[in-house]
Amino acid sequence: MRFFVLLLVFIAANIFAQQHEDSLLIRKIYSYHLTKSKSYTNLRSLCKDVGARLSGSKQAVVAVDWAKQAMIKAGADSVYLVPCMVPHWVRGKKEKCEAYVNNKPELLSVCALGGSISTPVNGVKAKVIEVSSFEELEKLGTEKIKGNIVFYNVSFDVAFIHTGSAYGKAVKYRSGASMAAKYGAVASVTKSMTTANNDFPHTGMMKYDSLIKQKIPAFAISAKGAERLSSLLAQNINAEMYLYSDCATLPDEPSYSVVGEIHGKEIPNEVILVGGHLDSWDLGEGAHDDGAGVVHSIEVLAAFKKLNIKNKRTIRCIAFMNEENGTLGGEAYAKVATQENKKHIAALESDMGGFSPRAIGVEAKQDTLQYYRKWQPLFEPYYVFIKQGGGGADIGKLVGVSQFSFEPDSQRYFDFHHTNDDVFENVNKRELELGAATISSFIYLIDKYGTYKK
Amino acid sequence: MRFFVLLLVFIAANIFAQQHEDSLLIRKIYSYHLTKSKSYTNLRSLCKDVGARLSGSKQAVVAVDWAKQAMIKAGADSVYLVPCMVPHWVRGKKEKCEAYVNNKPELLSVCALGGSISTPVNGVKAKVIEVSSFEELEKLGTEKIKGNIVFYNVSFDVAFIHTGSAYGKAVKYRSGASMAAKYGAVASVTKSMTTANNDFPHTGMMKYDSLIKQKIPAFAISAKGAERLSSLLAQNINAEMYLYSDCATLPDEPSYSVVGEIHGKEIPNEVILVGGHLDSWDLGEGAHDDGAGVVHSIEVLAAFKKLNIKNKRTIRCIAFMNEENGTLGGEAYAKVATQENKKHIAALESDMGGFSPRAIGVEAKQDTLQYYRKWQPLFEPYYVFIKQGGGGADIGKLVGVSQFSFEPDSQRYFDFHHTNDDVFENVNKRELELGAATISSFIYLIDKYGTYKK
Repeated sequence: MRFFVLLLVFIAANIFAQQHEDSLLIRKIYSYHLTKSKSYTNLRSLCKDVGARLSGSKQAVVAVDWAKQAMIKAGADSVYLVPCMVPHWVRGKKEKCEAYVNNKPELLSVCALGGSISTPVNGVKAKVIEVSSFEELEKLGTEKIKGNIVFYNVSFDVAFIHTGSAYGKAVKYRSGASMAAKYGAVASVTKSMTTANNDFPHTGMMKYDSLIKQKIPAFAISAKGAERLSSLLAQNINAEMYLYSDCATLPDEPSYSVVGEIHGKEIPNEVILVGGHLDSWDLGEGAHDDGAGVVHSIEVLAAFKKLNIKNKRTIRCIAFMNEENGTLGGEAYAKVATQENKKHIAALESDMGGFSPRAIGVEAKQDTLQYYRKWQPLFEPYYVFIKQGGGGADIGKLVGVSQFSFEPDSQRYFDFHHTNDDVFENVNKRELELGAATISSFIYLIDKYGTYKK
Repeated sequence: MRFFVLLLVFIAANIFAQQHEDSLLIRKIYSYHLTKSKSYTNLRSLCKDVGARLSGSKQAVVAVDWAKQAMIKAGADSVYLVPCMVPHWVRGKKEKCEAYVNNKPELLSVCALGGSISTPVNGVKAKVIEVSSFEELEKLGTEKIKGNIVFYNVSFDVAFIHTGSAYGKAVKYRSGASMAAKYGAVASVTKSMTTANNDFPHTGMMKYDSLIKQKIPAFAISAKGAERLSSLLAQNINAEMYLYSDCATLPDEPSYSVVGEIHGKEIPNEVILVGGHLDSWDLGEGAHDDGAGVVHSIEVLAAFKKLNIKNKRTIRCIAFMNEENGTLGGEAYAKVATQENKKHIAALESDMGGFSPRAIGVEAKQDTLQYYRKWQPLFEPYYVFIKQGGGGADIGKLVGVSQFSFEPDSQRYFDFHHTNDDVFENVNKRELELGAATISSFIYLIDKYGTYKK
């Protein structure tokens, strides 16, 4: 009994000492990021020197080289590229939208949705039919829809706490062109996926149903534009709309995801992956989506190097290509991963912006979650929860790998997402740095203690 | 034994049912705030219809009436005023700062600090002595300081996680005029209290040491201005500065804190107080500081009324006057509170802005904290911690009352604090609403379960 008590005391003292050690090191990690890190200057460079970098574009090629250089500068032991083929959609030179009430034109802010076909060379002009759901569209049917433009006026459900959940519920309408085409519509216009009420149209990927006979052009309209259009339709049910876009899909292009790693000192064949995506939409500068995730991930490498943390396992940073319209970089990487002589044990994705850290999401059942929840006290000084959550689009194809996500505050994310306003100036330096610190700290714990084992 | 087990099962089931009930009600509270609340429109009105409202000003008088009306509209059972005398400092009509290197003037952004005396009618022009601490100033002494302008170039310590801690460490330099005057300086200029690097000077209260013989004018310079001034001094140690201000302190004015309450249905003589401060600095619109806290508090009343929550205890909302330069509203209220036939059990202040909620701060020792920490699981869906923390300046004079603070994300607060940029447009609707929801939920739990009793 006495031995047992002594053993318990020893174990408890040991746990306490370890937690104390971890607590001190995590504080060092945060201090490094807040005082010395390159996250912010790297993001400025990615946004301003490279700019928007849609898959297949010239800027995407520049971005690949940029990421390679940034990882070398961060101190990666090796940096290499993982090839993939990517789609090459281009917006073209001109987009236009006018609403007509009694033949009086009024400009509204729209953009073509990624993957859309162009309009005919003279554009399309037709009556606008406003619907708030697919069910409503179906009820109207061919009789009311044929030859007209369908306007999906669907707002985010603001009662969700995480705006990503509201996005998840509404985003199907971005691919509403197929359903509209089924009933003979000549174009579709979808209210932008946003919580904000401003005049930026939000692009994003749309897909055509493979069964439809006739593709129609698909646009997003700004929140203010949708409000205005709806009020015009309320005044005059016969309001018309003119739409023009010369966007196009060109042949696929070869591209690359960029990988930089620090070799493990004890178990180098176990890989802990941390990544964001390098490509962005062609509007804005891809600052929050996902320049932030890229610089977060690169700065994890830098923190380990600068703080001289001897990682047991291999820490691998990836800037994935083509998350926005295909996730073909993630798919290609997952294939390569099965072929190499290493085992991925964990993967964390940062693709929710550069805002203040709120949580690390763990894709796991309750019993597994408890393992990681033990670390929560270490994160409380930084106001960070460890919660049930998801992984990410790019890492989703990795099989049998513990998946994690970095969850920054979501309230402003869809103010900027996929717009001309997703620029460097809308990222706060400290918030960005705190994100990189949170991710680095979690990766440190995973490296030290490993993932959950049953 | 069997009875004991049954009793335990009964207690456990009861706790679970209660938690479930609380969880559902808190979800209703958040939904109310996100879908139906008046926080945002109230804040717009306070910022745009009333505007800046420094104690003693005409706008402060308008603000008192505004708060009274807003509380009535929110459904308060009774609304009344608690009088106080307040200082009346006015900025005057003109402020100017020029740096001179080789007689070439360069405009820099400054503002007089609240409570400062004016410059002589022709302003002051003198050599600038830059220091980074009081210790450095003392070392220079009268010999180097006499007849010159002292420039406190002290930056926030960015390693703090909560920017309020960095503010707490640096803010003593805002009252650095006395120490400068002691060594014969003719004016003092302090780098603005901010984490941002922009050109807004930040005002705020400065106090003169009662022992100094000669008061000197005190200014704040923008972060960019401080950077520029420092670089000019690095080029030329003899750089001079011209400063002008016609600010003045007028006689004290009578004013009021505004109180609105919902009577308790079971224990009406126990009061739970929730408040923010109605006064603001004269720059900007006092949106984050502390329009947000005022509309948060008013919306607690509205939520209880609209959701038909039968509060046991009296819920009292206060819009305090004169937090910014005296906290005389808080002092007057604390006196009145000792005289009334009611007992305050808890007080919560919201005075850290309208950003995303991060925590409820509990001013308590560890054992007391545990009592409130039991509620944390109820707040996890909203990413809110219950942490050791402070109360607030206005409620600080209430003796023997459990004190709480609402802690929103602090990273951007000092970007706006006390500047022309603290305007309605810089408050995010959802973030503001989530703040009111978090406070309402915590007040609901305090009302239902009471405060900690030993």
